[in-house]
Amino acid sequence: MHPRRASHCCPELDHVHLDYKMRGLSDHSFRLSQLTVVLCVDHLVIYLLLLLDFESPEGAVSNPEFFNYGVEAYEAFKKGALTSDIIDEQKKVQEADLVIFQFPLYWFSMPAILKGWMDRVLCQGFAFDIPGFYDSGFLKNKLALLSLTTGSTAEMYMKTGVSGDYRYFLWPLQHGALHFCGFKVLAPQISFAPEIASEEERKAMVASWAQRLKTIWEEEPIDCTPPWYFGQ
Amino acid sequence: MHPRRASHCCPELDHVHLDYKMRGLSDHSFRLSQLTVVLCVDHLVIYLLLLLDFESPEGAVSNPEFFNYGVEAYEAFKKGALTSDIIDEQKKVQEADLVIFQFPLYWFSMPAILKGWMDRVLCQGFAFDIPGFYDSGFLKNKLALLSLTTGSTAEMYMKTGVSGDYRYFLWPLQHGALHFCGFKVLAPQISFAPEIASEEERKAMVASWAQRLKTIWEEEPIDCTPPWYFGQ
Repeated sequence: MHPRRASHCCPELDHVHLDYKMRGLSDHSFRLSQLTVVLCVDHLVIYLLLLLDFESPEGAVSNPEFFNYGVEAYEAFKKGALTSDIIDEQKKVQEADLVIFQFPLYWFSMPAILKGWMDRVLCQGFAFDIPGFYDSGFLKNKLALLSLTTGSTAEMYMKTGVSGDYRYFLWPLQHGALHFCGFKVLAPQISFAPEIASEEERKAMVASWAQRLKTIWEEEPIDCTPPWYFGQ
Repeated sequence: MHPRRASHCCPELDHVHLDYKMRGLSDHSFRLSQLTVVLCVDHLVIYLLLLLDFESPEGAVSNPEFFNYGVEAYEAFKKGALTSDIIDEQKKVQEADLVIFQFPLYWFSMPAILKGWMDRVLCQGFAFDIPGFYDSGFLKNKLALLSLTTGSTAEMYMKTGVSGDYRYFLWPLQHGALHFCGFKVLAPQISFAPEIASEEERKAMVASWAQRLKTIWEEEPIDCTPPWYFGQ
């Protein structure tokens, strides 16, 4: 496709070592919210955005030789050493019978800050374990519901529309995250394209949501398996 | 499902108004990275995590009455008023023929910090416009590739596995984000479950990736439409 590039692309990635232990690690705290490393290998510039955002109040990273966020969060959970903001959020989840996530759809998913909530709060030990996921997930007696607004219209999110069936983009969120943690998932509440809707249409969207909430406890969860999302 | 709750759930959400203009807004800067509002409506506690993370160096929010991140980013782009970190990232994208996203799969998606990169960098005006998306997206002469590691095994990501076909979770990322911006998408590079693989298997994963990169410019993109993801 780019024949002019064929001659100078042979990065030997396997001998690249990043000694990130030298950067930002100390005995008492660990917080690297963003670390960009630029590698130049034979005309190919590679930007590595290291994805670390972890704070251990006790400074006890269980494996300083090989940082793994999921493992560190799991170890911190077991020791009661998670940061207080995460513990506070976990308490809210623990007390809830139904968790409603309300958000605008960004890139067929949640906005990053809400994704960060999921990455940090729903940690191993709290929300699941291995084994202990999907129908055996630790939040299995709770309900979850995604209530979201889209930029595109309902027509674009039909099976034959340019953006495909709206159920397609729900799979990672509803099955990969919520169901994995054991949540029973209620049908999503989707308000399509409120930005270009009339005032009357917007009021109808809110009214229908408010109406639904009155009987929300009577609803049965969806069957959160591939046929619901992709058909038979 | 929760009959004991049926009697006290009738929130009137439509008359809730949040005057967030009072919090953190000034004439010269706007940065609300996280604002949690707690509403108590008839025994139902609702936590609203307001999803704002926007910095306008000119303090010129185009519509202070109704904050919309996408609109503000679009306006800032057109005025050249985006923050320098975003402009720097957009320059890197603009200069690239191929953008490789390397990440560990978190909740069937990117880690939040990388999702934040997409939310902020691929803004309207830069990466797409209306019209000007999917095959007409502004990055249409570029290639993109997702290279990711998973926690689960390849067997779990088969069509009949508990996590469903791995192509299912690629839909929002490859189609909803990359293709929407015009990128041609190369086949993903997935290294399944390196954490539980042997040292030999891990070396083979890296070697196969390095081998592939040698001829990456000769590859043809996938047909980024529903049949690739979900079959016919």
